[in-house]
Amino acid sequence: MKAFYGDLRTGILGGGQLGRMLIQEAINFNVSVDILDPDPNAPCKDLCNRFVQGSLTDFSTVYNFGKNLDLITIEIEKVNVDALQKLEDEGVLVYPQPRVIRLIQDKGLQKEFFKQNDIPTSPFRLFSSRRHLEAAGVPFPYIQKLRRDGYDGRGVYKVSTAADLKQAFDAPSLVEDWIEFDKEIAVIVARNSKDEIKTFPTVEMEFNPEANLVEFLISPSSLPREVTDRAEALAVKIASDLKITGLLAVEMFLTNDGTILVNELAPRPHNSGHHSIEGNRTSQFAQHLRAIFGLPLGDTACIGNAIMVNLLGEQGFEGLAEYEGLDKILKLDGIYVHLYGKKFTKPFRKMGHVTVIDDDRDNAISKARLIQDTVKVKI
Amino acid sequence: MKAFYGDLRTGILGGGQLGRMLIQEAINFNVSVDILDPDPNAPCKDLCNRFVQGSLTDFSTVYNFGKNLDLITIEIEKVNVDALQKLEDEGVLVYPQPRVIRLIQDKGLQKEFFKQNDIPTSPFRLFSSRRHLEAAGVPFPYIQKLRRDGYDGRGVYKVSTAADLKQAFDAPSLVEDWIEFDKEIAVIVARNSKDEIKTFPTVEMEFNPEANLVEFLISPSSLPREVTDRAEALAVKIASDLKITGLLAVEMFLTNDGTILVNELAPRPHNSGHHSIEGNRTSQFAQHLRAIFGLPLGDTACIGNAIMVNLLGEQGFEGLAEYEGLDKILKLDGIYVHLYGKKFTKPFRKMGHVTVIDDDRDNAISKARLIQDTVKVKI
Repeated sequence: MKAFYGDLRTGILGGGQLGRMLIQEAINFNVSVDILDPDPNAPCKDLCNRFVQGSLTDFSTVYNFGKNLDLITIEIEKVNVDALQKLEDEGVLVYPQPRVIRLIQDKGLQKEFFKQNDIPTSPFRLFSSRRHLEAAGVPFPYIQKLRRDGYDGRGVYKVSTAADLKQAFDAPSLVEDWIEFDKEIAVIVARNSKDEIKTFPTVEMEFNPEANLVEFLISPSSLPREVTDRAEALAVKIASDLKITGLLAVEMFLTNDGTILVNELAPRPHNSGHHSIEGNRTSQFAQHLRAIFGLPLGDTACIGNAIMVNLLGEQGFEGLAEYEGLDKILKLDGIYVHLYGKKFTKPFRKMGHVTVIDDDRDNAISKARLIQDTVKVKI
Repeated sequence: MKAFYGDLRTGILGGGQLGRMLIQEAINFNVSVDILDPDPNAPCKDLCNRFVQGSLTDFSTVYNFGKNLDLITIEIEKVNVDALQKLEDEGVLVYPQPRVIRLIQDKGLQKEFFKQNDIPTSPFRLFSSRRHLEAAGVPFPYIQKLRRDGYDGRGVYKVSTAADLKQAFDAPSLVEDWIEFDKEIAVIVARNSKDEIKTFPTVEMEFNPEANLVEFLISPSSLPREVTDRAEALAVKIASDLKITGLLAVEMFLTNDGTILVNELAPRPHNSGHHSIEGNRTSQFAQHLRAIFGLPLGDTACIGNAIMVNLLGEQGFEGLAEYEGLDKILKLDGIYVHLYGKKFTKPFRKMGHVTVIDDDRDNAISKARLIQDTVKVKI
């Protein structure tokens, strides 16, 4: 490969924080990307070769954005796959492939894919409407998930009573047993077009139950090697079964009896991999670029303990964002602040993250708690 | 500090690779910078809030660029200091300060500053022209350096014979004894406006004698602690004497008898600190931003052994750049490629760098040699 990547016209569907962190890495590859995003103030707006404001779900907008590009990738799944399919048919490289995005866009298809490929997942049933769901008389409690467009905790609903059921989503959904799980874990895996596959070490997540968002992530997981080996082998199997080109985040539950159940997939860089920027030899963003550019995948070994804290918009504040406490936490060693360039905050909006790197795990955890107590995104 | 940095209108004089790597870090602080550079295809062109094509040395261009900004920094010293001084007088934060840039722009003033402050440096004399130099009959061999505008090995001339002297620079210059030195070393130091000062661990450099450019840099230096302590203490003293706000690169010679002589200063991120992006807990770019934003300085501890290899334009090739061998070296672990977004290569032009991180120093050196043998920037 003589020309390297300066000549590869590359576009990203979506110009949010994931696109922004991809750009920070793409700079190293001489790639100046084009961005399509509906928000005229998208975080990537000032950091790209060409910024197009437009809908990610409109066929002609996506098609026109992509038709003069060599390579397209995504930072969000909610995109017009028909346009991507046409672009792929016309010779544009689309990674992840449109067929993979189409499958992952629909949580029902995802679950069926797991079933067909003997990938352990919690039992599920599909419903086309609330009426259909009510008629089935599924025993409480259970989780209803919209098949499409749910993300960041939206589109997920716990049904514990008949009253809850009346408020259930009236749209195509899947219903899963309520799983009592011990831990939520995640493995990020990358596959390049030469079928090279590499996982990142398993991470553990702590959720903010109120926001239903990952708030705190620990890398590497302290679970027994036998468990993390199983989790990583599952991620490899899924990437291989899907034949995805690019990054795949695999979210899993570890149940009380030690079973691993795959929860859901994201075919792109993911919140559960942000710690890798400082915490692993290769970041998830560099790895995604290596995979889609057809380059050898990088070493994913951990550099010390990493804890990632999401900076979410404080409850009760909506408006022009201000950041309290950052100067205080920057006095600590091994603190890495990443702000996402979002002008406006609202409750639970992802405004940035902070990664702590510390050789001592307990120190890392104390620093993470201090960050949570100290840094506030208000107005 | 509530607002953090999104509201701080920040500009950089110069839009080359140093500006580019500063931008990669500034993104984390929510800062979208304005760039002034004479080259319409400057490496930062697509990565900034506002790109202004214009001269860095023209008073009104620099003044007009800066007059609506809150903070200005530089990535090159050859800028119009009078304009910066006027901007500072009018309340714009200019870091490093105009008086520091003015001093460092002139190697003669630098040397006099060393002398006045008891900073060890090789003996020197100042000359206003070649005729003046010829008349002085300085014994051969010696080094003539232009007082102004020399960089990347330009503006430095070894005079060993009367014939050499005829070709000497006919401009204000300084003449230094030819120093037989054992090693060239460098220390990067940062000072913020609260007088907090922190050094990076001392690095050793290997030069390409043909190009007179740093080609290979090893961090940390393997010199005895006593030597690196002295080097780092000198860097602290210089930053403190200068009262600089921002980063200062201090290049030094270690002579055969163990004396450290300060060679020259750069008041900005520097080639001798590129390894810090992956090789230190805080990179030189993050540290410069912390210093000029008035934030606490970051931990500079090393992460393993780091070797930085400059990717220079191959001799005999001038034109649209192509990169040979990058896919090969990306198979190795711990390899970080940084390309600078320059369309055109010419002999010895700095086109990028590669950093090797390896716990084993000998392995790191072998990988660096392999990179030098494998990666070629041609057309």
